[in-house]
Amino acid sequence: MMSKRKKRIHQQKVGLPPGTLVFTGERYLDTPNVTLIQYTQDDFRMEQLQDKKPPIKDGFKVTWFDVRGVHDLKLMEKIGKRFNVHALTLEDIVDIRQRPKFEEFKEGVFVTLRSFQFDQDNLELKGEQVSIYFGDRFVLSFQEDDDDLFFRVRERLKNKSGRIRQRGSDYLAYALIDSIVDNYFPMLDKMEEVMTDLEETIYLDNDPKIKGRIHELKLQTLHLRKSVSPLREAINQFAKSESPLIKEETVVFVRDLYDHIIQVLDLVETYRDLVSGLNDLYISELSFKMNNVMKVLTIITTIFVPLSFLAGLYGMNFEYMPELQWRAGYFTLLAVMFFVAVGLLLVFKRKNWL
Amino acid sequence: MMSKRKKRIHQQKVGLPPGTLVFTGERYLDTPNVTLIQYTQDDFRMEQLQDKKPPIKDGFKVTWFDVRGVHDLKLMEKIGKRFNVHALTLEDIVDIRQRPKFEEFKEGVFVTLRSFQFDQDNLELKGEQVSIYFGDRFVLSFQEDDDDLFFRVRERLKNKSGRIRQRGSDYLAYALIDSIVDNYFPMLDKMEEVMTDLEETIYLDNDPKIKGRIHELKLQTLHLRKSVSPLREAINQFAKSESPLIKEETVVFVRDLYDHIIQVLDLVETYRDLVSGLNDLYISELSFKMNNVMKVLTIITTIFVPLSFLAGLYGMNFEYMPELQWRAGYFTLLAVMFFVAVGLLLVFKRKNWL
Amino acid sequence: MMSKRKKRIHQQKVGLPPGTLVFTGERYLDTPNVTLIQYTQDDFRMEQLQDKKPPIKDGFKVTWFDVRGVHDLKLMEKIGKRFNVHALTLEDIVDIRQRPKFEEFKEGVFVTLRSFQFDQDNLELKGEQVSIYFGDRFVLSFQEDDDDLFFRVRERLKNKSGRIRQRGSDYLAYALIDSIVDNYFPMLDKMEEVMTDLEETIYLDNDPKIKGRIHELKLQTLHLRKSVSPLREAINQFAKSESPLIKEETVVFVRDLYDHIIQVLDLVETYRDLVSGLNDLYISELSFKMNNVMKVLTIITTIFVPLSFLAGLYGMNFEYMPELQWRAGYFTLLAVMFFVAVGLLLVFKRKNWL
Amino acid sequence: MMSKRKKRIHQQKVGLPPGTLVFTGERYLDTPNVTLIQYTQDDFRMEQLQDKKPPIKDGFKVTWFDVRGVHDLKLMEKIGKRFNVHALTLEDIVDIRQRPKFEEFKEGVFVTLRSFQFDQDNLELKGEQVSIYFGDRFVLSFQEDDDDLFFRVRERLKNKSGRIRQRGSDYLAYALIDSIVDNYFPMLDKMEEVMTDLEETIYLDNDPKIKGRIHELKLQTLHLRKSVSPLREAINQFAKSESPLIKEETVVFVRDLYDHIIQVLDLVETYRDLVSGLNDLYISELSFKMNNVMKVLTIITTIFVPLSFLAGLYGMNFEYMPELQWRAGYFTLLAVMFFVAVGLLLVFKRKNWL
Amino acid sequence: MMSKRKKRIHQQKVGLPPGTLVFTGERYLDTPNVTLIQYTQDDFRMEQLQDKKPPIKDGFKVTWFDVRGVHDLKLMEKIGKRFNVHALTLEDIVDIRQRPKFEEFKEGVFVTLRSFQFDQDNLELKGEQVSIYFGDRFVLSFQEDDDDLFFRVRERLKNKSGRIRQRGSDYLAYALIDSIVDNYFPMLDKMEEVMTDLEETIYLDNDPKIKGRIHELKLQTLHLRKSVSPLREAINQFAKSESPLIKEETVVFVRDLYDHIIQVLDLVETYRDLVSGLNDLYISELSFKMNNVMKVLTIITTIFVPLSFLAGLYGMNFEYMPELQWRAGYFTLLAVMFFVAVGLLLVFKRKNWL
Repeated sequence: MMSKRKKRIHQQKVGLPPGTLVFTGERYLDTPNVTLIQYTQDDFRMEQLQDKKPPIKDGFKVTWFDVRGVHDLKLMEKIGKRFNVHALTLEDIVDIRQRPKFEEFKEGVFVTLRSFQFDQDNLELKGEQVSIYFGDRFVLSFQEDDDDLFFRVRERLKNKSGRIRQRGSDYLAYALIDSIVDNYFPMLDKMEEVMTDLEETIYLDNDPKIKGRIHELKLQTLHLRKSVSPLREAINQFAKSESPLIKEETVVFVRDLYDHIIQVLDLVETYRDLVSGLNDLYISELSFKMNNVMKVLTIITTIFVPLSFLAGLYGMNFEYMPELQWRAGYFTLLAVMFFVAVGLLLVFKRKNWL
Repeated sequence: MMSKRKKRIHQQKVGLPPGTLVFTGERYLDTPNVTLIQYTQDDFRMEQLQDKKPPIKDGFKVTWFDVRGVHDLKLMEKIGKRFNVHALTLEDIVDIRQRPKFEEFKEGVFVTLRSFQFDQDNLELKGEQVSIYFGDRFVLSFQEDDDDLFFRVRERLKNKSGRIRQRGSDYLAYALIDSIVDNYFPMLDKMEEVMTDLEETIYLDNDPKIKGRIHELKLQTLHLRKSVSPLREAINQFAKSESPLIKEETVVFVRDLYDHIIQVLDLVETYRDLVSGLNDLYISELSFKMNNVMKVLTIITTIFVPLSFLAGLYGMNFEYMPELQWRAGYFTLLAVMFFVAVGLLLVFKRKNWL
Repeated sequence: MMSKRKKRIHQQKVGLPPGTLVFTGERYLDTPNVTLIQYTQDDFRMEQLQDKKPPIKDGFKVTWFDVRGVHDLKLMEKIGKRFNVHALTLEDIVDIRQRPKFEEFKEGVFVTLRSFQFDQDNLELKGEQVSIYFGDRFVLSFQEDDDDLFFRVRERLKNKSGRIRQRGSDYLAYALIDSIVDNYFPMLDKMEEVMTDLEETIYLDNDPKIKGRIHELKLQTLHLRKSVSPLREAINQFAKSESPLIKEETVVFVRDLYDHIIQVLDLVETYRDLVSGLNDLYISELSFKMNNVMKVLTIITTIFVPLSFLAGLYGMNFEYMPELQWRAGYFTLLAVMFFVAVGLLLVFKRKNWL
Repeated sequence: MMSKRKKRIHQQKVGLPPGTLVFTGERYLDTPNVTLIQYTQDDFRMEQLQDKKPPIKDGFKVTWFDVRGVHDLKLMEKIGKRFNVHALTLEDIVDIRQRPKFEEFKEGVFVTLRSFQFDQDNLELKGEQVSIYFGDRFVLSFQEDDDDLFFRVRERLKNKSGRIRQRGSDYLAYALIDSIVDNYFPMLDKMEEVMTDLEETIYLDNDPKIKGRIHELKLQTLHLRKSVSPLREAINQFAKSESPLIKEETVVFVRDLYDHIIQVLDLVETYRDLVSGLNDLYISELSFKMNNVMKVLTIITTIFVPLSFLAGLYGMNFEYMPELQWRAGYFTLLAVMFFVAVGLLLVFKRKNWL
Repeated sequence: MMSKRKKRIHQQKVGLPPGTLVFTGERYLDTPNVTLIQYTQDDFRMEQLQDKKPPIKDGFKVTWFDVRGVHDLKLMEKIGKRFNVHALTLEDIVDIRQRPKFEEFKEGVFVTLRSFQFDQDNLELKGEQVSIYFGDRFVLSFQEDDDDLFFRVRERLKNKSGRIRQRGSDYLAYALIDSIVDNYFPMLDKMEEVMTDLEETIYLDNDPKIKGRIHELKLQTLHLRKSVSPLREAINQFAKSESPLIKEETVVFVRDLYDHIIQVLDLVETYRDLVSGLNDLYISELSFKMNNVMKVLTIITTIFVPLSFLAGLYGMNFEYMPELQWRAGYFTLLAVMFFVAVGLLLVFKRKNWL
């Protein structure tokens, strides 16, 4: 569930003045990977930033800084200063345990959410915090890890596909969030697949790992819900915000995004019920199997124990046991045993045990 | 639960610009089946549309396009253009995974919901997305599949039965939604029948499929609720909408429709409780049966094991065992065994085990 | 749970224009039983109506039509016409599957609710729909069945007991609803009695019917709640209504009625918890009994199986088994067996199994 | 749960006109016990009232009638008349099944709630209805039973301790309610003690009464919640009331009282969770014990059944069984048996069963 | 769960006039430990107060009294008087069973909450009540115990780190609360660690303490939620308060604090689900193990009981048993036994039991 490292971070943060930047994530990269994109409807430039001075040029409609890796606190402070980001917001960006939220300031709008990847084999849900801050003519995006979440948005910008180049920074911010939320669906599909598989496994075999997998899935749905549920609230605030930074024509799209998140939340809630249904099913199945095992045991015991008793009876060494001398004694007893066994089987048949 | 195909669609949609039409359903038909109906209070015409130019005539009060099969994206775009449907709405129509919702625009009102059919034998709930868009003098209805959901409404239009020909497009839209919601009731009745049957089966036999069927039913009620619950909200918005496209006299009917949906939702909620009650009942029944099996096992064991021990005792080959020489030894032992058995039976009787 | 007939009705209603009268109940009576009562503070007349023309006389403060049996759709339409009842309201009256609700129109106020009777032996809850519609100087009451629900109200009218003859039609409507809600309490008492009995039965015996009865009770409480919960809402609307048909001095009584319904709802909710508690108790009891059965089995087995083994050992026919020749062999073995048994019993004692 | 008497009352009340006084409690006293207290800041008199005329004197700031036993309906009516109490309020006072509530009239304010006593041995929660009605210069308090709930308030009045003699009737009413709510805490402590004891008992022994006690506790917490939850609402209304009868300076205290009730409710909710936790724990414990019993049974069976088989094998009477003639046969077999037993024990050890 | 002492306190408080100071905690210290800190942006003094007169000097921006140990009621009254604290607030401070709350008065603002420490070994959650009262230029903090909760805040004050010395009393109060809430995170991490450990233990061994630990954890999460959930409400009120004592620039920080508390609450809710998941997992595991044990038992019994019967059969002493005379009798029987055993094993194999 949690590494020791995370605990260390928590203790390390305790007692620090608010607004102090403390990176609470794992350092996936040595140096952050920063991409600068600038565009107007007709123009487009993209540059990979090195340590040297940031070559932001004027005259563009939107300037987008895509920062991967938020552990370089000096860089963060420099960016924060340049774009007038509030100290508490910067703290939120580098503290990777944020609840998704939406905050608007006079200078900018801040949205933080999580991107997820689901590893079907280990039932592991890898989350990564993504923060987006946009102002009048700029968008800043921050992610913990180095995976290229915004590849398709960049392609659309490059290729002028859709309306993205005609719109402003608010639309770009929307498009970034939308691309992350869109990624939720294939992840949820993977989860559903795992559940379908599990359901079949429950009926078929007796794998000791099933209960662990059900438990693990339950944790993942919990985890997801904890992240998506505040996101709904955040995007709702986004859609209803009256900040002048958000244009009227973007709001329709944000509302559409809101619909998608509700769909995601619906699915997550459904999955929680499904997982708990799987657990019930598993318990039923165990009880059912146990019942069958017990019946077999009882049938065998009930038939053979009386027969064994009879055999034991005539194995006694009393000097005077008249039956032993009878010529037909042995065969009579065999017949008696046969009828006892058949009779018991009939009783079980009638009790529906066979 | 889900086919691989659906997953493919999800991944395919990821990253596309919003408003891009992507059909996410299964292609049931080769070419969509489009019916055009036009009527005033006194006039009525109906035509099956082929690929040729749409022969919409003027002078009718209401023009209704009934489109079955929404996979022909070119057709959809053509219709969208002709009736001024917003791009995001068109996207919703062809994306068959919509949550029921109500949206009003200046040019039209959009309602999307699901029609259901319940297959009693496989406990399968087949849902189909139906979208209705209506404007001042037209209604567009879209459904995934080819089944004729609106047969009865068409008959009423043809036969001038009820008030439908006197009213406008909003009433027709209401009538279409109402006919789908009306269909929920027989479907729910079928579900209830399945539950009643299951309840009896639980008591009677030991069918290994019972738990699977209970689980399946639980999934279906979950599924239904996920669809009906937002529908309630949508119809509520419909009833409270102040759009000029919805006339005062239609609102009474929409409110009546709202009552029906609440009834449906009540039933669905009740069914969820019923199913979970069935599960509890099944577990109780299994425990009860197990208890009985165990009692039989214990009674048999408890009676015969001591008797067998006695028999074994006198089957030993010690040279000096005085009882073996007694004349009455054997019969005394038989008597002892008899009293032990009877005594144990009496104990069980008193413990209420027999 | 449901008869085939009900399903037929559902399918029969599908697709009909809204406002079409369809009786969905069972026909308990051949002809409806209609009583006409008219009164002022000083005057009172009561008449059983036959098919002939309704002899309503003028000059009375309140005219009350008490209709038992709502399957005669022609009669219903005639009444509806005479008192200006909306078509959808008439449809609600004859459709006996209504959710309790309150509706106000300009011409009248409509309340529908259910009266219940509880059959303690079969754990059957028989509900009957009662609809009340009142206008300025008249009250219409409709019930499915022929049982005389309003006997006591009629007596109070006849005997001038209480303030009922001094008040108007709204107070009479209130009194009718109140008399039905009052009847809920003895019904709930019967339910509680059944639960108390069940609780005792669970401890005492091993009746296979217990789980079925618990399940049945759960269904009944579900059923009740489904009916009482919207009734609370309806009466709340009644109490808060600003319709001129409801006088200020009646509102105090409606609010008192509201308190009673909340009490009923509290009880129903409590009963749901009680029933689910009974189920838990039953499962605990089964587990506890099973545990005890298993202990008996284990004790018997654990004591006698080793002893039997010893006996079997000395029942072997090896030629050379020195113990068999010992004079004291047999008695020594008996002593060993005795100590083994006593030792095992002591172990069980210490493990708290005896 | 309920006596037959209560049912009789319910049926007896059905159909009576509202406002009819019907005493629904048990008659604990022959004649009600009425205490009259009158005070100003400097003066104080107390009198036990007999049947004779009530000697209420003028010139006092507050007149408090403390009535114990509400079955004397004539007395109730007399008091009701004297202090202008509404008929429905009087009905509520003598109907001891009230939900806690707050009602304000022009002439007075009415609060009804329950006082509880918890009998730790029988896990019985004895509730008693207390009603308080206060007007401008008087307070009426009514309780079912004869126990002296307001002893301490009376003492404070007598001894002039605290600010109670300086305040008006609203403060006295508050003080009375507060003294009852204060009494909830020691009662809840007793409940908690019972739970702690139960928890220990679950681990230690196998008392068949445990599940009954858990069930009983569940009922009691249900019961309590049903009473405290509406009380919160009532006191909230008290605190927010704008009645001129409630002075500004009293409101701070009512709000403090509200805090206490929330604390009580928190505790009750916690106890519900605790009890359900106890049930889970009990079921776990039973499963765990069963598991252990089964293991013992399985180990014994698994070890001795094969050994007994071997012994049985060499107890057969075939004429030609070569092993029987071997000199070392017996001892070889004993050795084989020893190794089988040890081997099986090692297997169990490795499976963590020992 | 609760010591006898607490009960004594409860009973002791019953019936006292409201506003009476009663210390309800345990007396950890002989004399309270009071620290006086005064600062402006440039000046700072700190003094440990003895019994002598409190040497508060003028001319400082903020005066902070940090009181550890609240059992000295005289001291409390003196402080209360000096800083104009309402009697009911003082009562809340010394009554250590408070629900977290926020209250604003004209003279000051009062916040009470709990600080927690989690003892991983005994799964004990030690809570301590902390109350903070601040006015225009002063802050009072009270805690039950002697541990130095505010060490880091004091250090920041001393070292002028962060903005704390520039702000007023409201910021200091915020900083104190923040430092307590910050401490929640490492505590929650410890809890999570315990859960992770427990999860592993469930799979691995059969420790009888597991269910007790799960139960204990459930209690602790309940406990935590009971404390954090009202704290959220309190801090929400703090953030929205319009008291002139709370400056605009502090509100941003209080809102940040609110976000942290929501995070804590999220975690607590998640932990509750986790614990209940652990319980389910434990029950599944027990059932699964039982199933396996039963299978072993059944396999052994089913194989050996028939074989033993056969052995017993040929151990009988009938005079005429033809098989016994056969030369190959013994070996034939051994062969038969072998095939029976192998056949049964194959059956089990096919049933997936091996």
